[in-house]
Amino acid sequence: MKDNMGNLKALKGALVFAQSGGPTSVINASAAGVFIEGLKSKNITAVYGAAHGIKGILNEELYDIGKESKKELEALKYTPSSALGSVRYKLKDADVDDTDYKRLLEVFKKYNIRYFFYNGGNDSMDTCNKISKYVVKSGYEMNVIGVPKTIDNDLYGTDHCPGFGSAAKYIATTVMEINLDAKVYDTPMVCIIEAMGRNAGWLTASSALAGVKGLGPDLIYLPEVPFNVDKFVDDVKKVCEKNNNKCIAVVSEGIHDENGELICEKLGQAGAKDSFGHAQLGGVAAQLASLIKEKTGFKTRGIELSLMQRCGAHAASQTDIEETFEAGKQAVRAALRGVSDKMVCYARKPGDKYVCEYTLVPLELAANTEKTVPKEWIINDGTYVSDEFIEYALPLIQGETKMQKEDGLPRFAKLKKVLVKK
Amino acid sequence: MKDNMGNLKALKGALVFAQSGGPTSVINASAAGVFIEGLKSKNITAVYGAAHGIKGILNEELYDIGKESKKELEALKYTPSSALGSVRYKLKDADVDDTDYKRLLEVFKKYNIRYFFYNGGNDSMDTCNKISKYVVKSGYEMNVIGVPKTIDNDLYGTDHCPGFGSAAKYIATTVMEINLDAKVYDTPMVCIIEAMGRNAGWLTASSALAGVKGLGPDLIYLPEVPFNVDKFVDDVKKVCEKNNNKCIAVVSEGIHDENGELICEKLGQAGAKDSFGHAQLGGVAAQLASLIKEKTGFKTRGIELSLMQRCGAHAASQTDIEETFEAGKQAVRAALRGVSDKMVCYARKPGDKYVCEYTLVPLELAANTEKTVPKEWIINDGTYVSDEFIEYALPLIQGETKMQKEDGLPRFAKLKKVLVKK
Repeated sequence: MKDNMGNLKALKGALVFAQSGGPTSVINASAAGVFIEGLKSKNITAVYGAAHGIKGILNEELYDIGKESKKELEALKYTPSSALGSVRYKLKDADVDDTDYKRLLEVFKKYNIRYFFYNGGNDSMDTCNKISKYVVKSGYEMNVIGVPKTIDNDLYGTDHCPGFGSAAKYIATTVMEINLDAKVYDTPMVCIIEAMGRNAGWLTASSALAGVKGLGPDLIYLPEVPFNVDKFVDDVKKVCEKNNNKCIAVVSEGIHDENGELICEKLGQAGAKDSFGHAQLGGVAAQLASLIKEKTGFKTRGIELSLMQRCGAHAASQTDIEETFEAGKQAVRAALRGVSDKMVCYARKPGDKYVCEYTLVPLELAANTEKTVPKEWIINDGTYVSDEFIEYALPLIQGETKMQKEDGLPRFAKLKKVLVKK
Repeated sequence: MKDNMGNLKALKGALVFAQSGGPTSVINASAAGVFIEGLKSKNITAVYGAAHGIKGILNEELYDIGKESKKELEALKYTPSSALGSVRYKLKDADVDDTDYKRLLEVFKKYNIRYFFYNGGNDSMDTCNKISKYVVKSGYEMNVIGVPKTIDNDLYGTDHCPGFGSAAKYIATTVMEINLDAKVYDTPMVCIIEAMGRNAGWLTASSALAGVKGLGPDLIYLPEVPFNVDKFVDDVKKVCEKNNNKCIAVVSEGIHDENGELICEKLGQAGAKDSFGHAQLGGVAAQLASLIKEKTGFKTRGIELSLMQRCGAHAASQTDIEETFEAGKQAVRAALRGVSDKMVCYARKPGDKYVCEYTLVPLELAANTEKTVPKEWIINDGTYVSDEFIEYALPLIQGETKMQKEDGLPRFAKLKKVLVKK
C-alpha cells in the first residue's frame, strides 16, 4: 500500500496465515517463520492461523496464535504436514461470481486483517493473486504475500521451492537403501520405484542424487519426456544384461505417452482391475513391475514412495528447514515494508559456494507458470539426468534435521489451537 | 568341542561368517561384531566372509576380511542389507542327500575353517543346525554358532531379534508422519498401511508405538487373529463415525481368514487382476483401500512400507545397532570358549531399567519354533495391542543412529571384497 505521497506505508492490523494444497515435511517451518516474526511487530495487532486454508477465513475459523507458546511455535519447524489443516478450494473468477470474495472481505474487515499470507503451490498462488486483486479493487488496504510450498519444485520465479530439498533427500536416501536391499540375492531382481510429480520430474530426478554415493538407480523416467512402454522394457533388459540381471528404475507418477495419456491409465485400461472392476489398483510402479515380470520372468518389485516422500520429516534437510522458516519471516518483513501482491522467492547467489537469497516475484507470474526440469538436463535417451541437475540439487539436501526426539520418536509441535470468538 | 578330559578346548583355525535370508537395516552390525572380534583372536588364523550365505562356501567364494580396513568394518554397523550378499538355500536332510554336506566339509577342511557363524532367521538357523550336526557326526572339529537376524522378531529363545527394533522404529515414526499427513484436509480419508510379517505380527504391532506420541493408528490387524473382511469394513466405518470420517489402519501382509487363506489371495481371486490376468497387483493394503472406497465412497489410500521398513538404516535404533554388533562379538567369544551348536540370544534383565544380556540357546530349538505376539496382548476385539506390547517394544527403539553422513547422504561401508584364492 502507498500513502498520498506515493510512499509505502505500514498498516496496523491483524495478520492471517493459511496453508493450502498438499503438505510437505517442512511446511510448518514457514508457519513458524510467519508467526514468530508476526508476533514481534507492533504494527501487527493479532496473529491468526486459518483452519483449512481459505475455508477457515470463509467460515471464520481462526486460531489465536498469540495463545501458543514460543516452544511449540519453534517445534513447528520440525513438524510435517499442514498444522492448521489444508484445503483444495478453487475460488471462482470474481467477475463471474464474487460471493466468496465479498465474504472474505467481510471477514477481513471484521477482524481488521491487514496482512494476509497464503502458503501453497501454483493453485494456491492463483487464489492468493485473486484475493490480492480483489481487495485492491475494493479499496481495502491489506498486504498480500504468497509463501511458496511444494515438494514438486515447479513454481516459477524461485530457484527452488520450500519442501523440495527434504523430499529430494528422503528419495535419494531411500533409493540408496533400496539399492542395497534389492541386490542382496544372487538372482535376478528388477525394482521399480515411483515418485510423485504429475508434470514436473524434479522429485524423480532427485533419485539421481543417490548416484553421488554410487547407489543411484540405473534408469530414471521423468514426465518431461514421453514414455514408451516397449522402449522401457528394452531399457530394463539392456541394464539387466550388463548388470547381472539387476535393475533399479525410478519413474514419475506422471509419466505419459507421446499423446499425453498417463501410463498408469493406459496400463490400467489394458486390464488391471480391482475387485470391483475399477482400473488402477496399484500405482504405475506396480503396473510396470508386473509388466517386466511378464516379459522377463524375473522377480520384480514395485515400490510407491507414497505419502512418505512428502511427510518424512525425520529425514528432512536442515537447509530446507532453515530456508523455509526464513521464507515465512521474509514474507512478514516484506508485508511490513508495504509490499503486496508478491510471492517470496529463493535466488541462488552466483559463485561456488551455495548461498540462498530471498527475493519477490509478482503473484500473477507464480500462479500461472509451471517450471519443469530443463530438457537439456535429461540425458541418455531420456533415461537419466545430467550433472547439472546434481549441481543444482545437491546443496538443497545438506544438513540433518535438528528435530527433537522423545521416547525414541519425533517430538512434534502440540498447538493449543484456540479458536477466536466469532 | 571338548578334549579327552571333557574340557572345552580352543580350536585354532579360520573363521567364516555368512548371511542368509531377508536382510535388515542393521544386519551388518553383527558382521562387524564377528569380524572385529575375530580379527583380535590369536586362535583365529583367518577371517572370511562367505558370498551369498552357504552358497559362498559351496562355491568357495570367500572374502578375505583381513584385507578390509578397520574404518570400513566399523561403518558396517550403519550399512543396511547383507554386505556379503544373501541367499535362500535350503539344505536337504543329510540322511536323504548328503552331497552339499560333503562339499561343505571339503571346503571347511581345505581352508581349515574351525569357526562357522551363520546369520539369519528360522530357516538359516535350521541350516546352521544341520551343518552343526553333520560336522559332529563326521568328527570334524568346528564350532558352529547361529547369529539371529530378522525384522519379523519371531525367533524362539530370544527376548527380541536383531533388526526388529530398527524396523519397529521406522514403522512407528512413519505412521506418526503419515497420521499427520493423511488428516490435513477437512474431507474423509481412510489410510491402510501394510507392514511385513507373514505369521508373526510384531512389526504391525509396532505401529502402536506411534500412539505413545498420540499419533498411533486407529486399528491394527495382526496375522495372529483371523481376519474377517466384513468386520474390518464395520470397524473402519465405526472409527470414521466418531472421528470426522478419518481412519488409519495398519495391517500385516499375512492377515488371513479363519481357514488360513491369505486375505491378499482371497481379494485377489475375487477379481483383482493385472494387465496379464495375474491376481494381486498391489498388496493387501491397496486391496483393502479399494474395498473401503467402494463401501464408503471415501477417499482412501493404501500404503505398503515395502523394503523401506527393513532397509531404512537412516532411521535405525541405536539400541538395536549396538545390541546387534554385540551379538556378533558374543558369538565369537562363545565359539572361542568352545561353545558350539548354539544361537546367541538376548535376555532382558528383570527390573525397571531396560538392560539387554546375552545368552545362548540350542540351535535346534531356535530352528523349529516360531514366536508370535502373545494372544493376551491383542485387545479391542483383535484391533489393537495392549500396553504390555508397548512396555516390551519401546526400549528397543531408543537412540538415534550414529550413521555418518557425506554430501547430506548416508556414508555406507565400502568393502574391498578381496576373494581368497581357490
